[in-house]
Amino acid sequence: MPHRPPTGPNPPPLDLNCDMGESFGAYVLGSDEEVMPHITSASVACGYHGGDPAVMRRTVRLARQHGVAVGAHPGLQDRAGFGRREMQVTAQEVEDLVLYQVGALEAIARSEGIRLAHVKPHGALYNMAARERPLAEAIARAVRAFDPSLILFVLPHSEMQRAGEAAGLTVVPEGFADRSYEPDGSLTPRARRGSVIHDIQEIVRRVVRMARDGTVTATDGSDIPLSAATLCVHGDTPGAASLVRELRSALERSGVIVAPPGRPAR
Amino acid sequence: MPHRPPTGPNPPPLDLNCDMGESFGAYVLGSDEEVMPHITSASVACGYHGGDPAVMRRTVRLARQHGVAVGAHPGLQDRAGFGRREMQVTAQEVEDLVLYQVGALEAIARSEGIRLAHVKPHGALYNMAARERPLAEAIARAVRAFDPSLILFVLPHSEMQRAGEAAGLTVVPEGFADRSYEPDGSLTPRARRGSVIHDIQEIVRRVVRMARDGTVTATDGSDIPLSAATLCVHGDTPGAASLVRELRSALERSGVIVAPPGRPAR
Amino acid sequence: MPHRPPTGPNPPPLDLNCDMGESFGAYVLGSDEEVMPHITSASVACGYHGGDPAVMRRTVRLARQHGVAVGAHPGLQDRAGFGRREMQVTAQEVEDLVLYQVGALEAIARSEGIRLAHVKPHGALYNMAARERPLAEAIARAVRAFDPSLILFVLPHSEMQRAGEAAGLTVVPEGFADRSYEPDGSLTPRARRGSVIHDIQEIVRRVVRMARDGTVTATDGSDIPLSAATLCVHGDTPGAASLVRELRSALERSGVIVAPPGRPAR
Amino acid sequence: MPHRPPTGPNPPPLDLNCDMGESFGAYVLGSDEEVMPHITSASVACGYHGGDPAVMRRTVRLARQHGVAVGAHPGLQDRAGFGRREMQVTAQEVEDLVLYQVGALEAIARSEGIRLAHVKPHGALYNMAARERPLAEAIARAVRAFDPSLILFVLPHSEMQRAGEAAGLTVVPEGFADRSYEPDGSLTPRARRGSVIHDIQEIVRRVVRMARDGTVTATDGSDIPLSAATLCVHGDTPGAASLVRELRSALERSGVIVAPPGRPAR
Repeated sequence: MPHRPPTGPNPPPLDLNCDMGESFGAYVLGSDEEVMPHITSASVACGYHGGDPAVMRRTVRLARQHGVAVGAHPGLQDRAGFGRREMQVTAQEVEDLVLYQVGALEAIARSEGIRLAHVKPHGALYNMAARERPLAEAIARAVRAFDPSLILFVLPHSEMQRAGEAAGLTVVPEGFADRSYEPDGSLTPRARRGSVIHDIQEIVRRVVRMARDGTVTATDGSDIPLSAATLCVHGDTPGAASLVRELRSALERSGVIVAPPGRPAR
Repeated sequence: MPHRPPTGPNPPPLDLNCDMGESFGAYVLGSDEEVMPHITSASVACGYHGGDPAVMRRTVRLARQHGVAVGAHPGLQDRAGFGRREMQVTAQEVEDLVLYQVGALEAIARSEGIRLAHVKPHGALYNMAARERPLAEAIARAVRAFDPSLILFVLPHSEMQRAGEAAGLTVVPEGFADRSYEPDGSLTPRARRGSVIHDIQEIVRRVVRMARDGTVTATDGSDIPLSAATLCVHGDTPGAASLVRELRSALERSGVIVAPPGRPAR
Repeated sequence: MPHRPPTGPNPPPLDLNCDMGESFGAYVLGSDEEVMPHITSASVACGYHGGDPAVMRRTVRLARQHGVAVGAHPGLQDRAGFGRREMQVTAQEVEDLVLYQVGALEAIARSEGIRLAHVKPHGALYNMAARERPLAEAIARAVRAFDPSLILFVLPHSEMQRAGEAAGLTVVPEGFADRSYEPDGSLTPRARRGSVIHDIQEIVRRVVRMARDGTVTATDGSDIPLSAATLCVHGDTPGAASLVRELRSALERSGVIVAPPGRPAR
Repeated sequence: MPHRPPTGPNPPPLDLNCDMGESFGAYVLGSDEEVMPHITSASVACGYHGGDPAVMRRTVRLARQHGVAVGAHPGLQDRAGFGRREMQVTAQEVEDLVLYQVGALEAIARSEGIRLAHVKPHGALYNMAARERPLAEAIARAVRAFDPSLILFVLPHSEMQRAGEAAGLTVVPEGFADRSYEPDGSLTPRARRGSVIHDIQEIVRRVVRMARDGTVTATDGSDIPLSAATLCVHGDTPGAASLVRELRSALERSGVIVAPPGRPAR
């Protein structure tokens, strides 16, 4: 499918966000330096599933240098499983661990002259909060208590979105560049074949359609609405940086302004 | 020695501080609930050497309930050694880990309507920063960057005191209720016999003298000056609460106003 | 109900096991020194949910001193949650973490001249493996690979029991002294009221019936069969030691020989 | 300097060892798969400074597949610092943590049909034990208690060597392929310029001289004796695999038999 020429009504601006700062001590994860120049929002790990104070500072500096908005990316306390393993946590535990991590990052960011712009839960915490309202509410409470002007990145139509809105937060629905969608708008579970899209041209095509038309083709071939205002790209795969560069360039050629949410376009 | 009657010039007020919130998950350490009513400043562990987000919240609430000032008690990342083992850390690592922990606690405290009042490094970090200027400066930089109105608790005449003053921070010299002092004003190393005083009456006598006269008897029998404005009591020994209650009562009988630093006497 | 006089056929011997060595660094949990003299098997934490190398050594020594059999008590890698929070783990992860922990304890025990006698999974791992056959099989594989003569403590009629038997291991069904049972023989979930029995005399009566008659009264008042060959007592509650002493004494008065499984009665 | 032709008396065989299995969860460190085919001994991290049970199993399998001897590589409990930061540990703590880690690895290795061949302490533990006799003795005690037939890799002329010999262990002196030496035979501290040699040809020349002549040129230009029976190569630098392949090939061309210590040459 050829890119549609940028005619018709202007598409809304789109944020490109990427998980960042997930390295830890001697362990390097992701290619933050290569990817950072091409994104508009960095979701920075806060020392639970990934990251540590030194990595957090380096990542905030790198984001500042490229004019990238900085958000917190809190996760479960499970470094061994990289925060990807669901575990039994209470709503109170979630509220407390989100506050802890957001506050820790904010302190480091503040010392670098940066204010946090958003919060995006990581991995299993993101998935559980999308499904379970009490956990979603706990996250929303933590964010509102910390700073009600922080934007919450959410899976569209999830409990997270509803809880964020009910708490009066600005929520920004998130799409995924390289993930396939079910007809009901949910992500195809990772364990299923085809859940992750590897072909760059296909990713580009899907993303441009999401941004311009607000639709994506689901696994059954049907087109479903998907109004993402921020798009998650991944920085820990080989060739991540060139994919992101290409994505951004294709979006801009299609007339999509790439900018962080809630900020004037550059 | 009998308590001196409270005549002559009024002694300066004295803060009673105690390490708090060092429990962790299923592990209970200290008798926070018993001790909190009798102190004026709580130095709350921040999840590195002790504490966790849930404990931090409970501790902040308990302090608020008793009108006790809340400070951060950051430590080395060594839960297995409870932050008591000195380790090779760079000044940058120290600056970052202090910011991380202070920010984490501040977020939780803020959600409970509490502003942090002070910072007191824990254990090996306190001891190393007392001796090593670059580490002391790193702590002072972190505190100033986070909130220059935070008070820094310091060992008198230490590098920590000098670095805090050079950074423009309010520093409050700290005395220890149950530790013996060397003729040069340093603490007798814990490994040495007699470094910790166990007799309650002797502790009370020493503390009242510190508060009223600004002196303490050193290990060689000589009286040395010690102008502590905050006094560290311990909450993790049997009978801690009754010792603290007795200490406070003896101080007040001696005309010493017990109050957190920089706040009006109650 | 009065204790039945020890007439009729001899009841089978009963093992008294207790979780031990769950302290960690500066954190003390349980009253191991008080409880150890009264039990016959110690399930020693292996440094994941609780314990550390120093605690493991102290605990093994204490067990040896009292002639108590030593087993491994491996748990999930979740010290913050004390291994009580279920989490998504694969069978392979479980097999590896059981081997890791059993091997670690065995090395320390061997250096104290002690051979391990049994393995009992801890907390959430125990519960998940009781329900999920692949996890149960993973544990059984790990134990068999390490030492097929190790006894596996299992919840009666659980997947753990079936997997252990299928692997050719000696399995020993376990009863719980202070837990209530459902009519189907499962433990009443902890979240439910009455799941934990606090009355000492009631505990003693139930345990003596379990040991002598092989029955226990379920929550609906019916008597159900429960043939436990090892009985789990808890060491981390106030009065734990005196409860255990009383239990053991009542059992012995009732003609029950208290001894570790697979060893000659003392 | 040209390679000396392999004339004269046969040089002793040389072991090539490399730190392996230092990845952790989602974090990949080193290029174990590329390096393993070219070495003769793998020192496998045991879950403290690096590694985890899953990585340990994969690493043991990989070593087995290439006929490489497997040893334990225990480190300090400091994953955040990768075991490279010296910390205050007692001899008893060291003895216990070595036993713990060696036992954990042995259990996993045994389940893969592999017996451990050696122990080599990691990072700061290696360095501290080279200097401090009580720590060296603690390591030697742990190894002897676990299995007195395990070989201990030691820095030549260090306290570690002396303690190992005094404990009756087989000690194997270790040389470093890419490190510069002081005139007294110690390694040039890493912080100093030139402490690490990057030029492959120079590394090859030095190693061949070590192996054939038992000498190395120190920082002052003098030739000093260095009788290493195992040579440490690094697997975590770019091009590590090709350096190791080249090293081994140069050694074999020079008549050096490359083989694990204490085993018949291949």
